[in-house]
Amino acid sequence: MRITIIGSGNVATHFAAAFKNAGHKIVQVYSRNLDHAALLAYHVKAEPIDNLEAINTETDIFVIATSDGQIDLLASALSIYNKTMVHTSGATGLATLSQYTELSGVFYPLQTLSKNREVDFLTVPICIEGCNETITKQLLDLARTISNKVYLVNSEQRKILHLSAVFACNFPNYLYSVAEQLLKQNNLDFDIIRPLILETAQKVQQFLPNEAQTGPAARNDTVTMDAHLQLLGANPVLENMYKLISQLIIKNQEAKH
Amino acid sequence: MRITIIGSGNVATHFAAAFKNAGHKIVQVYSRNLDHAALLAYHVKAEPIDNLEAINTETDIFVIATSDGQIDLLASALSIYNKTMVHTSGATGLATLSQYTELSGVFYPLQTLSKNREVDFLTVPICIEGCNETITKQLLDLARTISNKVYLVNSEQRKILHLSAVFACNFPNYLYSVAEQLLKQNNLDFDIIRPLILETAQKVQQFLPNEAQTGPAARNDTVTMDAHLQLLGANPVLENMYKLISQLIIKNQEAKH
Repeated sequence: MRITIIGSGNVATHFAAAFKNAGHKIVQVYSRNLDHAALLAYHVKAEPIDNLEAINTETDIFVIATSDGQIDLLASALSIYNKTMVHTSGATGLATLSQYTELSGVFYPLQTLSKNREVDFLTVPICIEGCNETITKQLLDLARTISNKVYLVNSEQRKILHLSAVFACNFPNYLYSVAEQLLKQNNLDFDIIRPLILETAQKVQQFLPNEAQTGPAARNDTVTMDAHLQLLGANPVLENMYKLISQLIIKNQEAKH
Repeated sequence: MRITIIGSGNVATHFAAAFKNAGHKIVQVYSRNLDHAALLAYHVKAEPIDNLEAINTETDIFVIATSDGQIDLLASALSIYNKTMVHTSGATGLATLSQYTELSGVFYPLQTLSKNREVDFLTVPICIEGCNETITKQLLDLARTISNKVYLVNSEQRKILHLSAVFACNFPNYLYSVAEQLLKQNNLDFDIIRPLILETAQKVQQFLPNEAQTGPAARNDTVTMDAHLQLLGANPVLENMYKLISQLIIKNQEAKH
């Protein structure tokens, strides 16, 4: 397909590369900042533009991969070209596009993407929604050229997925940073705990988290929990978080029996 | 070396197998429950016992890999044999053994170990403490036969490591289970979020968590956070946790600038 990328951030960058690698033609890369557009366009042999009036109409699909706040305005402006138009946002409904066009859809990658880190795109779940069956089919076909994990997900479910991603990715990463901070304060290198973090995530590739729960709270080991709270005594914020999550784990374990 | 394993749980099982694979002789496996001792002993070609008076004195080291509450009593009973004696507990000081013997040490694996899941023991960090230089050297040498990641860690640091492991493993796993529950309630399979969990952990193998933080709180995106809190409205406990961790992430990001 002939694809126009709107945006030049993390998601735009990863999608442009994945489409290009799968043999699609990236026609143009649009960004408000021409330097940003040019950098990405260079990598995927596309034309960089910073003006929507320079859009090349010889394209099959606009992929709007910008921050959420820009989607509405861009959709409105791009609707005059009458092409399939998708956004890539987990938190934005299909309606933000479908109010402007009858060729709208969503192409949401459920993965944490950074420019400075490569991912194997074949393993990235892509959540598809189309405003009608023709669009849905077109998007499914396109998604399957870059990923082995393509799901049909409606706007309500996508909101839940986006929320779940906060609990499964952003919050765990914050807890890793708490460990980082505790280790640093005690002259221990973060390296020592990296294998534990990886194994914890690998375990739930095989089991469900509810089955994999371990630790002092899971066995209601109050001696160890009290000792941990004592160690955290100088930091009431962490102490409270420790108490809160431990109580939830204890409650969860009780519910199992 | 000739090694006697005291205990038959997860840690005992993984250590016995790792020692055996590295060419050591497992002399006996002790458990209060002879069936449990026999099961593990069978796998590592050792003799099972459920009575400390049946200890074979032709051994070099006792590895006490039981629950924390049993360590003191076992150390007291085993001290009469005058052999090197280590425990494998993160939460227990060296003093629990050194009060009974001058040949004491700690052999703490910083990993989440389950009987039903194999791990590559060469990647498991082993934290060593000896009560003198001779014991420390003996334990370092032994640890290096089964792991490429051997660290010298004193009792104070080990307590911090054990606490950090709660933040790096047990709490993230609980957050995975929150995602599991949210997805289930909305007819979405946990499978869809597994790659995100894995990539989140893989990212911090390369970067520090503090550098890898993403998500609505990291960019102080109040629109998305408000939408998420609305979705959690029916569950005040999760709503509170969402608020608490998001506030901590926001504060953390501010401290960076």
